[in-house]
Amino acid sequence: MMYQNVRKQNEEIRELMNEFSAKMVGFYNNLHTKPVGRPVEKETWEHLEHQQIPENGRPLKEVYEEMQRDIYSNILLAQHPRSFSCVPSTASLLSWMGDVMTNAYNPHASCKINAPTADLVEKKLIRWMCDRAGYCEEAGGLFVSGGSIANLTAMTAARDTKLTEDQRSNAVVYLSDQTHVSAAKGLHMIGFGKNQIRIIAADEEFRMDMDALKEAVAQDLQAGRKPFAVIASAGTTNTGSVDPMKEIAALCREYDMWMHVDGAFGASALLSGQYRKKLDGIELSDSLSWDAHKWMMQTYGCSVVLVQNQDALVRSFAAHPEYLKDAETSEDNVEFWDLGPELTRPARGLKLWLTLQTLGSRGLGNVIDHGCGLAELAEQILIEEKEWEIISRAQLGIINFRFKGNGTKTEQELDVMNQEIARIVTESGFAQVFTTKLKGKKVLRMCTINPETREKDIRDTIERLIETAGKVQNY
Amino acid sequence: MMYQNVRKQNEEIRELMNEFSAKMVGFYNNLHTKPVGRPVEKETWEHLEHQQIPENGRPLKEVYEEMQRDIYSNILLAQHPRSFSCVPSTASLLSWMGDVMTNAYNPHASCKINAPTADLVEKKLIRWMCDRAGYCEEAGGLFVSGGSIANLTAMTAARDTKLTEDQRSNAVVYLSDQTHVSAAKGLHMIGFGKNQIRIIAADEEFRMDMDALKEAVAQDLQAGRKPFAVIASAGTTNTGSVDPMKEIAALCREYDMWMHVDGAFGASALLSGQYRKKLDGIELSDSLSWDAHKWMMQTYGCSVVLVQNQDALVRSFAAHPEYLKDAETSEDNVEFWDLGPELTRPARGLKLWLTLQTLGSRGLGNVIDHGCGLAELAEQILIEEKEWEIISRAQLGIINFRFKGNGTKTEQELDVMNQEIARIVTESGFAQVFTTKLKGKKVLRMCTINPETREKDIRDTIERLIETAGKVQNY
Repeated sequence: MMYQNVRKQNEEIRELMNEFSAKMVGFYNNLHTKPVGRPVEKETWEHLEHQQIPENGRPLKEVYEEMQRDIYSNILLAQHPRSFSCVPSTASLLSWMGDVMTNAYNPHASCKINAPTADLVEKKLIRWMCDRAGYCEEAGGLFVSGGSIANLTAMTAARDTKLTEDQRSNAVVYLSDQTHVSAAKGLHMIGFGKNQIRIIAADEEFRMDMDALKEAVAQDLQAGRKPFAVIASAGTTNTGSVDPMKEIAALCREYDMWMHVDGAFGASALLSGQYRKKLDGIELSDSLSWDAHKWMMQTYGCSVVLVQNQDALVRSFAAHPEYLKDAETSEDNVEFWDLGPELTRPARGLKLWLTLQTLGSRGLGNVIDHGCGLAELAEQILIEEKEWEIISRAQLGIINFRFKGNGTKTEQELDVMNQEIARIVTESGFAQVFTTKLKGKKVLRMCTINPETREKDIRDTIERLIETAGKVQNY
Repeated sequence: MMYQNVRKQNEEIRELMNEFSAKMVGFYNNLHTKPVGRPVEKETWEHLEHQQIPENGRPLKEVYEEMQRDIYSNILLAQHPRSFSCVPSTASLLSWMGDVMTNAYNPHASCKINAPTADLVEKKLIRWMCDRAGYCEEAGGLFVSGGSIANLTAMTAARDTKLTEDQRSNAVVYLSDQTHVSAAKGLHMIGFGKNQIRIIAADEEFRMDMDALKEAVAQDLQAGRKPFAVIASAGTTNTGSVDPMKEIAALCREYDMWMHVDGAFGASALLSGQYRKKLDGIELSDSLSWDAHKWMMQTYGCSVVLVQNQDALVRSFAAHPEYLKDAETSEDNVEFWDLGPELTRPARGLKLWLTLQTLGSRGLGNVIDHGCGLAELAEQILIEEKEWEIISRAQLGIINFRFKGNGTKTEQELDVMNQEIARIVTESGFAQVFTTKLKGKKVLRMCTINPETREKDIRDTIERLIETAGKVQNY
């Protein structure tokens, strides 16, 4: 009987897990001393390429060691205090501990009967996050795997709430040129063609330009189109800019449009005393995406979608197959599987609960303040450097800047040089800094949201960038 | 500086993790002796309802113990050897160990540069699964969070491959009345109205009826509609039936329709020597959903979507924002973020790699054989019972049956009695058996896929059902 073969590894797993836990604590305590990333060695690659899935099993310890050596050793450490690219992970061992516990029990978190108290905790977290966003009593939502699925879920509800089937092909959605790519991807999935998406130019500070937005809506109305939704960003990925939410909300109300806020990255500022005001107006939106795996120290796969009126999700997603009838609790209880695209769903919120209980909401708020402060520090340092220019000022922990030299280089040459600076510093393993494109220029971008990042990390990284610029200039 | 406050818990986490690992091994080794589920105590519920998110943090150990006591203690154990409802989880500590390792490093598994060897391993797994399905060289796919997202991803690619925008509103999709509810949910999301979905009646053995399907396609063609896709099931959730794949494939080829196979539950039989033949014809499909968290012993959030031609996914999902330009590797390398709805994505496949390396593909194949054998055993036992009838014979580890008594009860009375039998046995905590509805009757359903389930578990559970029927009859 198979079960004996499976279970025989259990004692060994305990031993290996003890070893692994000790290793991980050492690993996280010493993150500062490690390279952010390191190239894969040729032997490792070849070994893995040749490693097939065996017909018969191999000793667990051998597999465990091989995975540590060949797979986990080559990961670009987004949780590293000098990982400044993209929106870096701030995952902590607290979140890991939540993963370890949750995955051990593996609750099926889609309906109350399967895991009543886990269900309660996720509902409390959703309610708490709704409160933080200033959402009303009818609000609700659920945990999903990431911002892309959150945006997709919200846009589906928006479509089904605001449009009849006949109106769909005539409807128009408004984004800015700084809106995250997942918005367009989600809109494509739910059936909107490219000609139904208006990209509104951002203003000088990379926020949606209200005049351009109003103009576009007016033109579409005149052309007999149906303006139906605006996707605002609360913390764009490029610059951390926040679109003018109150003005967008007023326009949406005027024309009966749905206002979705992509706050995947920036909504965490709702927890900050100091920076909360940057998100004023978010309470007027119809829906909100918010990733806990970005700025709330969670490992990946921990995001929420919130809606001002939970019924909108129920209308789009409720479905009741026969074999699940026994698992439904009551008419009053809305099950998570009726609120989004998934049926079976891991309990993604429990690790966030553990983190919030242990650090407190103020602890998380401090993380936000810390991250914003570090970007402001970077700005201060760079302002003093004559050969550098700030392209977008520190906003919600993101700053963009550019080596401009002494004025003798063309824009094209500077593009190449900035790209080269990013490449050299990143490949050194000391810090990870990527480029992005703003106002037609290649610029360097730092996202400084990791609570483990110290002032010294910022100073040392900028120093490296400046040194590297000096070398690149002399090529 | 925040980072010191966060890191101060690390040493404590190690101690708690050692304690937890020991506890978990004991827990899994003794699953047989535990109730499948237990009701939540009133005090626990009240305690949790009052537990708010504190402004200031609480001691980690207190939170850890509270979560164990109040949250994780009340979970319905789908991995229990006598959990026979829905498609029960077969999660093992091997998969948990993969979670523990993967989540500790938290790789961002969407592009090669972030975690090159993790990327390689997931690509090898995808290729291996494509080979198992008999897919061609151009095939590909990716890991997603579950069958619903897998179906959604495949249906989006199907729509974009087979239909112009103008054709969409005229297109028709064919499902059977046994198709999983996520198919209709996904179709709704990508824009298909109810009038575009034809539900084909299943035959006596709960497979899609080919005559009815052909008839429906012919009618739609005659009415000027565009038949565009058939969703076949390889292992329906209710009965484990497999739709006639070769015939469906031939019809799809004839009318240029996309054939999607929902194998979320049943595709794992591709690993079995004995039952692989039940899936003959699956290699002719255009896409396939396959959940590793159903029959391959993985914790939740581990599913794949495979397509016969990977370009179909690229066409629907590729998107390249500026700030990710530095993370792209080369033209040749297709990044996972270009193959599905997600951008940031946890490395869902690594735990499956660990399991496969340790147990071997034959080990997993034995798990399938074991599960199928147990349902066949249940069938043998029930055939001998005169007051019971088999509604659907053992298929891929699922059997449906019904207490029919001595012939003096009406069908309606029997519906109530069977429901009552399921409720009593489930509430006892000894085993979990739910009902479903087949051919208009309430029936008892057992899904026996857990490798930890022994013959004795099957015999004892059926004995309980029979005993309970006796009591219910005397009400």
